[in-house]
Amino acid sequence: MSTDLSRLSLNTATTKRASLAEAVDAAAAAGLGAVGPWRDRVQEVGVEKAARIIRDAGLRVSSLCRGGFLTTSDDDAAAVALDDNRRAIREAATLGTHELILVVGGLDAASAPGAGARPYPAGRGDDPARDLVATRRRAADRIGELAPYAAEHGVRLVLEPLHPLFAADRAVISTLGQALDLAAPFDPDVVGVVVDTYHVWWDPDLHAQIARAGAEGRLAAYQVCDWVLPLAAEPLNSRGHVGDGYVDFATITRWVAEAGYTGDVEVEIFHEDVWARPPAQTVATLADRYTRHVLPYL
Amino acid sequence: MSTDLSRLSLNTATTKRASLAEAVDAAAAAGLGAVGPWRDRVQEVGVEKAARIIRDAGLRVSSLCRGGFLTTSDDDAAAVALDDNRRAIREAATLGTHELILVVGGLDAASAPGAGARPYPAGRGDDPARDLVATRRRAADRIGELAPYAAEHGVRLVLEPLHPLFAADRAVISTLGQALDLAAPFDPDVVGVVVDTYHVWWDPDLHAQIARAGAEGRLAAYQVCDWVLPLAAEPLNSRGHVGDGYVDFATITRWVAEAGYTGDVEVEIFHEDVWARPPAQTVATLADRYTRHVLPYL
Repeated sequence: MSTDLSRLSLNTATTKRASLAEAVDAAAAAGLGAVGPWRDRVQEVGVEKAARIIRDAGLRVSSLCRGGFLTTSDDDAAAVALDDNRRAIREAATLGTHELILVVGGLDAASAPGAGARPYPAGRGDDPARDLVATRRRAADRIGELAPYAAEHGVRLVLEPLHPLFAADRAVISTLGQALDLAAPFDPDVVGVVVDTYHVWWDPDLHAQIARAGAEGRLAAYQVCDWVLPLAAEPLNSRGHVGDGYVDFATITRWVAEAGYTGDVEVEIFHEDVWARPPAQTVATLADRYTRHVLPYL
Repeated sequence: MSTDLSRLSLNTATTKRASLAEAVDAAAAAGLGAVGPWRDRVQEVGVEKAARIIRDAGLRVSSLCRGGFLTTSDDDAAAVALDDNRRAIREAATLGTHELILVVGGLDAASAPGAGARPYPAGRGDDPARDLVATRRRAADRIGELAPYAAEHGVRLVLEPLHPLFAADRAVISTLGQALDLAAPFDPDVVGVVVDTYHVWWDPDLHAQIARAGAEGRLAAYQVCDWVLPLAAEPLNSRGHVGDGYVDFATITRWVAEAGYTGDVEVEIFHEDVWARPPAQTVATLADRYTRHVLPYL
């Protein structure tokens, strides 16, 4: 059995309590080929230094997580969100990665991710803050506003469909097919998609849409982690190690490979139990799971 | 503003702690036109008597909840499941409803709904118990086995797509489009679909698939309740009163009406706070919400 970890990437959310340097050390020591940093870990050391830390360890940057949250109907808030996304594009360019993951954001009615819904306007039975169709249209418009800037910087906006569990408060992009429809007007080198098993494993159209993403040249990243039950009290942090849950990694990985994907495989896990472990132990576990459940099918 | 409740139906799961007679009384007293009983409430009084209780109150039976859970790969377990579904078909016929809701069931790897996943077979990186494609094929086969029996009894198998949150442990039918694809080989009078807002509100293809369901004559039931956050500890019981969450009832109800649906609107809520109230209070709340958020768009 191959134990080649050169395509395995540690997403820094998986070792949430570690600094960038600590995460990079753990990944490099275990023989991984790449890391996928989150912006918080990059910004706390500064983007130039972050790039150096990763480069000096001999690792690639598989992607930068994340831009997005740009669906608001408020013009001022939208301007702030677009500015922040332009900054994320510059950060990705400086880090030397082509792939900037975007989580587009939710409904105006979502006061904060995971919290309750805003009440309806007085005396109204309908509510523009719950208009999912219009919110998705705004997501499309904002992607269009960012695309030229991303292209100038040699960075691709990578649309992430999130599990429909998060459609209200985190991402109105819920399927890979929808992400590809939104990407369609743009050059494949400027707007792509990511397959994150946690978010898309259930989709009856997944095989066809992964093939389509490959054929269109938009398959920008492959992230793996497992769907475990029962959900954690904070469902966002229910993502489990590969092999602990229900996802059929053999099948989905085959589909990704057949679609021509030759990039890194990022492990991105949000889970309190995983975060409580030392980074070296977490990396050892994810390398073991990758070797058993993903690599043979890649 | 109209307050005509003749198309409003109380699903007995909404008043979980009430007997069938108590639920029927509450619905009739408030002027509702129908109830949608669950099988437990029917079986505890006997199906003939249940039919009489509902008829004597002057109410229709909008649907019977529910058959299904027939995706197992174990032949003996499948035979038991099919027997139980045949019984559900007979119960629906006796109750005088044409619509039997089916929740098809989950993966073999789901030891019990909401509980953890079975481990992988020793030494294996893949696992047939996690094969979603094969599980969906079995669901199709079992629907085919039940269809003639349903047709003989004048009952329609109504496929319910469940929110992808439940794809592992409760239903491998996750979208309305997938449900319609599974229904396609059968007479529309024998296999139909239900639109339950909780399960499908997030679907980017919802408008098109509701229109398709109407055009094909398969739109058998419309169930409403709201997607509320944060999720309850048991996510199944996170369903809220219409208007308490994020669902755009005005838009979805318009789509259902435009698709030609003229049947009952069932309110099916699973929530501990709702169950703690007296049935009359729950029915008053759902009538108020229906009048404000659903009826004007129907």
